[in-house]
This record gives sequence, C-alpha cells and structure tokens, in this order.
Amino acid sequence: MSPAVMQTVTLIPGDGIGPEISSAVMKIFEAAKAPIRWEERNVTAIKGPGGRWMIPPDAKESMDRSKIGLKGPLKTPIAAGHPSMNLLLRKTFDLYANVRPCVSIEGYKTPYTDVNLVTIRENTEGEYSGIEHVIVDGVVQSIKLITEDASRRIAEYAFEYARNNQRTSVTAVHKANIMRMSDGLFLRKCREVAENYKDIKFTEMYLDTVCLNMVQDPTQFDVLVMPNLYGDILSDLCAGLIGGLGVTPSGNIGANGVAIFESVHGTAPDIAGLDMANPTALLLSAVMMLRHMGLHDYGNKIQTACFDTIRDKKVLTKDLGGNSKCSEFTAEICRRIQDMA
Amino acid sequence: MSPAVMQTVTLIPGDGIGPEISSAVMKIFEAAKAPIRWEERNVTAIKGPGGRWMIPPDAKESMDRSKIGLKGPLKTPIAAGHPSMNLLLRKTFDLYANVRPCVSIEGYKTPYTDVNLVTIRENTEGEYSGIEHVIVDGVVQSIKLITEDASRRIAEYAFEYARNNQRTSVTAVHKANIMRMSDGLFLRKCREVAENYKDIKFTEMYLDTVCLNMVQDPTQFDVLVMPNLYGDILSDLCAGLIGGLGVTPSGNIGANGVAIFESVHGTAPDIAGLDMANPTALLLSAVMMLRHMGLHDYGNKIQTACFDTIRDKKVLTKDLGGNSKCSEFTAEICRRIQDMA
Ligand SMILES: CC(C)[C@H](C(=O)O)[C@@H](O)C(=O)O
Ligand SMILES: CC(C)[C@H](C(=O)O)[C@@H](O)C(=O)O
Repeated sequence: MSPAVMQTVTLIPGDGIGPEISSAVMKIFEAAKAPIRWEERNVTAIKGPGGRWMIPPDAKESMDRSKIGLKGPLKTPIAAGHPSMNLLLRKTFDLYANVRPCVSIEGYKTPYTDVNLVTIRENTEGEYSGIEHVIVDGVVQSIKLITEDASRRIAEYAFEYARNNQRTSVTAVHKANIMRMSDGLFLRKCREVAENYKDIKFTEMYLDTVCLNMVQDPTQFDVLVMPNLYGDILSDLCAGLIGGLGVTPSGNIGANGVAIFESVHGTAPDIAGLDMANPTALLLSAVMMLRHMGLHDYGNKIQTACFDTIRDKKVLTKDLGGNSKCSEFTAEICRRIQDMA
Repeated sequence: MSPAVMQTVTLIPGDGIGPEISSAVMKIFEAAKAPIRWEERNVTAIKGPGGRWMIPPDAKESMDRSKIGLKGPLKTPIAAGHPSMNLLLRKTFDLYANVRPCVSIEGYKTPYTDVNLVTIRENTEGEYSGIEHVIVDGVVQSIKLITEDASRRIAEYAFEYARNNQRTSVTAVHKANIMRMSDGLFLRKCREVAENYKDIKFTEMYLDTVCLNMVQDPTQFDVLVMPNLYGDILSDLCAGLIGGLGVTPSGNIGANGVAIFESVHGTAPDIAGLDMANPTALLLSAVMMLRHMGLHDYGNKIQTACFDTIRDKKVLTKDLGGNSKCSEFTAEICRRIQDMA
C-alpha cells in the first residue's frame, strides 16, 4: 500500500464497554497502519444558551473539522428532558441516511445463510418529528412528517449507494395503502428517482410483506430504502438474522462527506471494564468508515482479519461462542493483519 | 359429543381461491358435524346514500344477526376512492382486536421450532386514522391517533385473553422513547390494566427490540399487545416464522361477541378454480371461530385432523410441499375426522 496522508477522525468512545471496544479498534487500526489520527471527544449533551440541549462545543468543533466520527455506545441519559444522544447527533450534523449492511458472517451460525442486504433509513423526519399534541383529555396525536426534499434525498442516496456498491436492486418499503399521502409522497419520490437509474432494478413492497418475506427468505433482498420508523424496525430485524447488534455495523451519513459510524448495541454495563466485550460491531463500523473515506485497502484488510478470526473459531469472545477476552480477540485480529503484510 | 343447537355464521367466501377454500371448510365442518348453519353473503362495498362506502345491507343485516363471520380473501378494489374492504369491515363492526396465534406446525419445516405466541393488535386507530394533510407543497403530515379508551380496551382484551388461554405473560410493544405522548399513553394504559392481572407477567419492549429478538428466539414471547401499525408488521413477521399466511389463522374481535375470522393471505388469482389452493389458514381461522363460540370440542377435533394430515405429509397441497389437490387434502382431513368418531 502506498503511504497515505493522515486523516483525522473524531472518536467518541462512549459509555460502558465503549472505551474498551474503542481501544480495541485503535489497536487494530495501528496494526493495519491505517492513516488515521484519532481525536477523542465526549458528546454528552449540555444545556446551551436558552436552555437548548446541545453537544459540547469542543466535540462539535472537532466533528466540523474532521467531518468523520466513530462512536461507541452511549448510555440513555436519565436527566428529565434530556434528549436521546443518537437523535441529537443525527440532528446536529443532519445525518440523513442510516446505512446498515447486513451480511451473513461465515462461521457464525444463525438460522439464515447468505444474507447480503443493506437497509437505508431516512434518518431525519417521519415518525421521529417529535410533534405531538393532546387534543382533549385521553386523546393524543403524533405527527408523521414526510417531505418531498427528504424523500428525494434518501431515494437518491439509496440508488447512488446501489450503483457504487455493485448492487442490482432497490426496494422501497412503505404503507402507502394506509398512509396514502405521506408514504405516497415518499414512494412517488422513489419512483421518480428510479427513472434516473435504469441500471438498478426498482421494486416497491409493503412493510408487512417485507417483514414476512424477510424471515422466510432474506436472500431475495438487496438494497432497501424506507422512512424513519420502518428503518428502525427493519434494520434491527435484519441485524437479528445475521447474529444481532454485536456484529452489525452502522453508518449515519450527511451531506458533504460528513458521517458518523457507530456500533448500535448497548453499553453492556454488566461487563464493562472486565475485558469481555466484543468489539466486532464497532470494528466493522470503522471498516465502513474507511471505505467512506476512500481507504478501501485498509478496510478490506481489517475486515478479512476480523472475519477470518470468527470463521476460525479459536479466539472468540463469549457472546460469539468462545472463551477469549476482548484483548485476546483483538490481538488475534492484529496478528492476522501483520501476517498479511 | 352432546348434540348442540345450530348456530348461524355469516360466510363471506371472498374472491379468487376464496370460494374453493370456503367450500373445503364447509365440507370439513360437515364431516365434524359442527352445529353451524352458513349464511353466505357478498360484502363488496357499495356507495350508500350520501356517497359513503358501505357493505351491502343484506350482508350487514346477516352479521348483525349472527354476530359471527368467516371470511375468505377479498381482492383489493380498483375503483378510485374505494376503501380497503378489510378496513371497512373492521370499522363497520368495530372489530377492535386483531388476534393472531402463531404456533409452529409439526412436520412443516421452517427455521424455527416451538413458536407459540399470539399477537394482539389494536385494530381501530393509531396510524390507521386516515387523517392526513398537505401542509404546504411537498410537506405532508399523517396523524397517528391514540386514545385512552381504545388503549385500555385492547390492553384489557390482551390480559383477558392471556388468562382465558392459559398464557402466562403479556408484552406491550411500543416506541414510547420516540412517540412519548401517543405510545406513552398506550403504554400507560397497559401498565394500569396489568395491575389488575397479577397472575400474568407484564413486560414492555421497544418494537425494534422485539423484531430483533423475535427472529433470534421467538420462544421467549407469549402474548404481545400493540398499536395498529406495529401489529400489522409483527403479525406478518410472526406468520413468516411458522410458514406464512397460508397456515396462519386470524380473528377480528369486537364488543358483545361480534367477530370475523379470516384467512389473511391473498386471493391467488393465478390458481383460482384449479383445485390447487390450500384451505389451512381459513380452516384454522374457523377453528378459532368455533372456540370463540364455545364449541371447543369441534374445534379441537378439526384442528387435530388438520395438523395430523400435515404432519403425516402424504396428502398435501403444493404450497405445503405436496402434490395433492385442494379437494384431496380436504377429503383426507374429513376422513381423519370420521375415524375419530
Ligand atoms: C435509541 C433510539 C432513539 C434509536 C431509534 O429509535 O432510532 C435506536 O433504536 C436506533 O435505531 O438508533
Ligand atoms: C390490507 C391492509 C389494509 C391490511 C392492513 O394494513 O391492516 C393488511 O395488511 C392486514 O394486516 O390485514
């Protein structure tokens, strides 16, 4: 590999097992000589002027500069009125696309083999608008907000993703038979955008039908694009098919290259600090990040070492069915990377 | 079995394969000497006075009298503005609970064994309110409506169902972390009702977490209760786990004993009239109906004959992996019922 210029990434280690798995990722990146300089930041929201929750200025400033973040799990804030950190980050950096590749991992047995799909979730509006009212006592409305712009933007993202990742079809997931206007608008934009991508097959399917077909034969799906809540559901469902959140990477993509990659599992406070955590989800998210940055060779190398380690079954963390510590699993991946050189 | 008084059931054969599978069910009921008199009706909506869509008066009148309906698949109307027949029936008879038992069928292989759960879906409001607006060009709102009354009613139904069916736990499925007010209200009512059912274990879980856990280990679930759209999704997902809509029964329950039981698969126009259809979903729905009417012995007998036929694998329709016709599968079930006598 030709020596590459160092690029800065904002590292948000997170809570619970976050610091351990972050340091595992850093060790593996070092072994791979990935040209990344980490800038560690804490993002726990603070109350800004006017009482609005915001992420700390030094974290915001780092992200604004680096444009790229890698984030471990964050604990759910308990302070009243404190926002979900995930939502706040999506909002602060307008990370409009949540991308989750779900690919079967050889050697890690689940009821499904050959899963190879990507869910692309609209990440900014829909059922997550946060607009709710009490109409009269005992009667509540929540508003699902769908806009033409956000729908077109996510549809374009999905088709571009398909084209750039050698994928052949995009399925729009919707309930436009029920929410005719909102999901109808979303679907219409998908259809319009599809017109510009004649090389990609476009299909549309009801969300309930997708769920049913997904558990019967996930191999029929390729790229799926959908409004916010449907993506929340389907991305977790699909993660379940390949082994759960411990092995599923995730990326939140915004405009102009801005992106935060993250493991979507919890902070696992019960095993925090015990050198038992599985860093795979964060590591695979970091691999997505490398590809996003154009550093494909580094990404491929690390991914191969990770998957080889899992397939080999000799050095695995407990949740993966082994007896090894996080540090041992990490060292094994590093060893394989060094062997490749 | 002691001779029982004949009870009337409104039979809505439906479209496509509907008439074939309905007549299969009638034959099987006859073999079992089930004390049911069928009153056949067509429910295709007509435009009533004032231009409102309504089901034909003779169908409405039959249901009002019999209180119990059995319904085959209905084709999606193509006339502009024509409502979904399923939604219209739910509305006309205020069928507020959709109940779908999902139980693994011995001998019918899927990736899952020992699934034994029931989804209970609020069937009247939520995302199905039908209230939508264009705010400005390119910006659309759909309104999710959650009421205290409907939430309490479905929660009570779920706990009563659990108690009456020897089930031990009820899980409320929600996204109250996002839709704090609407799903929050739903969840609060579930919690309140749970207080009155100390014999039933109550848990609450996010919809995304349920989906993930469901595909990893469905045996952890028992009764699940949820708002309308989540039920639409989860009930289809769960049907997928046990073999799809061809083998999954469904009941729509209203107040005062009113109920319509239905197969939820499509009309399969490609095989209509060819004696190839699988009547299992409608038959198992009819078994639910018998139990609802207190005719447990008849229901158990028919169910046993149906499951024995499937386990035996000798006489199966094509979709079940066999080569037999609908009429042969039906005759085999009848034969087994007669052998039991
Ligand atoms: C934590 C929560 C706000 C979030 C969501 O509902 O989007 C989570 O489920 C996710 O998918 O990132
Ligand atoms: C046909 C459609 C209106 C319906 C729904 O969305 O409820 C269907 O999916 C169902 O579950 O009965």
